[in-house]
This record gives sequence, C-alpha cells and structure tokens, in this order.
Amino acid sequence: MNPPLGVLVASDEGVAALRGHPRLRALRYDPNHEPTAVQRECEVLVHSRFAAELAIAFARKLPRLRLVQTLSSGYDSWVGRLPPGVALVNARGAHGATVAEWVVAVLLSHYRGLAAFARAQASARWQRQTGESLAGKRICVVGAGDLGRNIARLLAPFGCAVTLVGRTARANVRGREELPDLVARQDVVVLAVPLDAQTHHLAGEALLARLPDGAILVNVGRGSLVDLDALLVHTRVGRLTAILDVTDPEPLPEDSPLWTEPGVTITPHIAGMTTDVYQRGWAIAVAQLDAYARGESPPNLVMTG
Amino acid sequence: MNPPLGVLVASDEGVAALRGHPRLRALRYDPNHEPTAVQRECEVLVHSRFAAELAIAFARKLPRLRLVQTLSSGYDSWVGRLPPGVALVNARGAHGATVAEWVVAVLLSHYRGLAAFARAQASARWQRQTGESLAGKRICVVGAGDLGRNIARLLAPFGCAVTLVGRTARANVRGREELPDLVARQDVVVLAVPLDAQTHHLAGEALLARLPDGAILVNVGRGSLVDLDALLVHTRVGRLTAILDVTDPEPLPEDSPLWTEPGVTITPHIAGMTTDVYQRGWAIAVAQLDAYARGESPPNLVMTG
Repeated sequence: MNPPLGVLVASDEGVAALRGHPRLRALRYDPNHEPTAVQRECEVLVHSRFAAELAIAFARKLPRLRLVQTLSSGYDSWVGRLPPGVALVNARGAHGATVAEWVVAVLLSHYRGLAAFARAQASARWQRQTGESLAGKRICVVGAGDLGRNIARLLAPFGCAVTLVGRTARANVRGREELPDLVARQDVVVLAVPLDAQTHHLAGEALLARLPDGAILVNVGRGSLVDLDALLVHTRVGRLTAILDVTDPEPLPEDSPLWTEPGVTITPHIAGMTTDVYQRGWAIAVAQLDAYARGESPPNLVMTG
Repeated sequence: MNPPLGVLVASDEGVAALRGHPRLRALRYDPNHEPTAVQRECEVLVHSRFAAELAIAFARKLPRLRLVQTLSSGYDSWVGRLPPGVALVNARGAHGATVAEWVVAVLLSHYRGLAAFARAQASARWQRQTGESLAGKRICVVGAGDLGRNIARLLAPFGCAVTLVGRTARANVRGREELPDLVARQDVVVLAVPLDAQTHHLAGEALLARLPDGAILVNVGRGSLVDLDALLVHTRVGRLTAILDVTDPEPLPEDSPLWTEPGVTITPHIAGMTTDVYQRGWAIAVAQLDAYARGESPPNLVMTG
C-alpha cells in the first residue's frame, strides 16, 4: 500500500475530517505565509475558510499541485487561475439543502412581515397586520442543479407553483430561452445558477423589466448574476423587491449605497453557512479525495486542468 | 324552496362570500350597535373581525339565534357564553396550513439569525455569522389536529424529527401522558392545542423544567397554555427561548414586561392571519352554513348548544 496522500488543509475541521483516514493525511497551511518545503511537495489542496484570492495565490506557489478541492459549490473564482494540469473539484451536494432553507426563510420572513413585528415588539406595540402566505405563489427557480432542485423540493409543500429553469429543457425543467416569457408571470424569481459567461448579468434590464409589479428577486448564486444598476431602477420606485445573499463585490463595502436601498435585503453570503454544512462539506470532500488517492476520478470534478 | 336563511355578517368579505348563494342571504351587523328588529329575527351569526367579547354581547341580544359560526379555529371565548339552544361551529381546516407556515417562518428566522443580519444591514456591516439549520432538529408538536398535522407536514421536508402528541396515543401520535419524558429530548416544543381545563398552564414549571438547555418553546394555541411566570424564570437566565404568537391577556398591554424579556419573541396573534386565510375561512363557513340551511348538521359543529 502507498503512503498516505498529503492534503493541505487550512482549518481544524480539515485536520479532524482526515484524522485516521487510511489513504489521506492532513497537513496544515496558512495562505498568509510562503509555502514551506514540505507544503511545496504536496499535490492536493483544500480551499476553505480563507478568501479565494489568498488561496489561489498560495496554490500557484505549489509546483507539484495536481488537485484543488473547494468546500463550496461555487468555483468561479478559480476558473482560469490554476496552472495547467491542476484539476478542480467542488463540494456539490453539501450546500443545496442549506441554501434552499435560507431561500424559504427569507421568503417566509418577507411575506409574513416578521421584521415589522420585531420593530413593533421593540416599542411594545401589539400591532396586528395581515401577512401574505407562500401558498399559491408562483416561483421561478433559475438553476436546476443540486441547489435549484432542493429549493423546489422545500417550497412545494407550502403550496407554491415552482418552475425550474435549466440551461436546456428536459423533463420538469424549462430551458433558459423561455425565461423572458416565464418571469412575466412570477411572484418570485430565484437565481441559483453558477456564474459564467452566459449567466453574467443574467438579471439585467431586459429580464428585470419583464418581472411583474411587486415581484421579488432572490439571488443565492453570485453577485454578478445581477446588473445592480438595472435592479436599483426598479427597487427605487418600489416596483421590485430584492433579497440578496451575494453581491459584487464581496464583502460589500461599508459605503455601498446598496445597504440602505429601500426594498433591498442583504445577508452576507451566508445562505449555505450553517453549523452542520461544514461537516457535510468535509464528508463530501473526503469522498472526493479518497477517490483521487485510489487513482479514480473524483465524482465532483468540475475542471480537469 | 324555502326563502334564503338570513346570516348576520360583520364584514364586506362576508357579504361577498354569501353573494348569489341560493340558500343563504347576508345581513350586515355591527356589534357596537344595538340589534335592529330585522337582526333580532336572525338565527345565524358569523363571528369575524370584531373582538369575541363584543360579538358575544351582541349575540346574547338575539332572541332567535340558533347558530354561531366562527371564522377562527379556536372557540374557547364562546364556551359557556351562549344561551341554551345556540350551537357553535368553527372554521377548522382554514388555518392549519397558515399557522404551520408561521411556525416554520419563526423557527427558520431564529435558527438562521435573520434579525441579526437585518441589524447588520442597518449599520452597513458585512458581518458573517454561522447559523443553525432546521435539519436534524427534534421537534415535539403538542396537538395532533389540523394545526399539529400541518406543522409536522411542513417541518418534515427540512429534515426535522417531528413527534406529534395528542390527547391519547394512536398511530403516529404519542399520548399526552408521555410529554414529560418526550420534552426532555427536544430542541423545540410547539404548543398547538385548544385551551381547556386540561391544557390550562400545560407548560408550567413541571414541564418547562424538563426541557433541555437551549430549547425553544413556541406557542400558537392560546396564551393560557403557558404559565408565564414559570417561563420567565427559564428565559431570564438564558436557558430557554420562547416564541409566542398568543399571550394572556391579548392585546398584550404596553406596560407588560414581556415585550422586553430577553429570549422572548412576540407576534400579535397573527400566525393564522394572511390575506388568503379569510377566503379559506369563508369558504369553510359557507359550507357549514349551507349544511345547516339544508337541515343537516354542520361538519365543524363544536358545541351543540
């Protein structure tokens, strides 16, 4: 049997996840420091915790690197940034249910007016207000992967009419070319696609103008899926509402006008961030790395390098 | 065919719901005024909109009254308050899904920390925090009627382990006598039972003391299901969290200390109050009244009078 494969990890969780594994051995790294001689011998790096820019800069200093494993589903930061011959594997499957949970959370909170009741409580006022129900809402989910399917699965029991939109039409999934027609009849449009050349500014003026008055745009993909200037034209007049877990740039600077836009709710890219999701992410990562160590292709391979 | 049955209604929605019905005819009433001669001839009154106390006082002035229909599920205010011979019918089935939606809304909002993110946004701070997921939470729902079953139905897809507790044990429902043992292993206990002599102060010191540290008590039944003094002992030390849609009394007075208790969230009895629930309530009420007009027993009869 070969000696265990050295895997660079940046967190205690990573050390714990690999502990006792017969084919994998954790080696700590800190992307704020230059790689040591031992680290420069490693062929596998797991990206978690630190900003992608830091991890990318560190990874580019590793001459023997062959594989980068992300603990996220999104991997757009890494595209075109790795040396030839370095493959990229993501943690697809770890975040879908958690992100979907956030989508249900923010929609319910919005429709049921929880923020207004919290303000009323803060000033000791018993102020009844009739909320809206998710029941009967027409919701278009753009993205039919792990994320989109989980969003549809959790929304359906509330009595929503959910339409899934994928790159191409297939059973129970509409094609992206139908979007302009579809969004015109929705109460909510959820963006849950990866960022790429085709999806950059997918929610631009052309699409946003088709959304009906009072519609809600939810973004759990990447900030650049939305043309913010175009969106703000619609939110400022009260025509659209936006609930954004992702922005461009991130972190959103303190002086960004977005923070105080009426009708815009922002959470700091936490839709997929819950205590249990790290465990699920590491479980998926270890399975990928184990496949690699056994000479197989990791199931979540997203770029062959 | 008999002439249509006169039905006293207090809202435009009621007038609209009965419009064109072959056997029912709406007559407006305002419980703030003395009944007119025509109103005094009516045998059916629908209670909606106005406080139960006002409607009860008005109903007691109607010599020919035979049936009161509530648009709510709860009817404890009416028990023992109607003259002999007046039956009571509720709108069971209208609110279950809506109240269950509120339970999911407040639990998700709590676990995902939405209030903290709203505060961070208000001060333009990108402040990431790891939330908790509903997945894996053990949730005991006390009450296995329309409400309890809807709560269980909506929570299950999130990966919660839901235990339903009814008055007596049956298939998939545990008996109330098991509560002291059951609550000791829960993350959340939801009260969704009617108020009666057996359930008054159901959540008193004996039961509350059995809840594990960090547990959440949710009340969507009636305020008096909870012994507030006992509860506050546990919330003040940070041992328990409470999310209450119902209080005793209601409205909660402005000077009640409950508004500012740490770990206590209050909404003003709106769990079942959404735009669509009135329509569902009226649809159910009309079906009950139609049965009565045809000489049948309304399916939702709760007191025969």
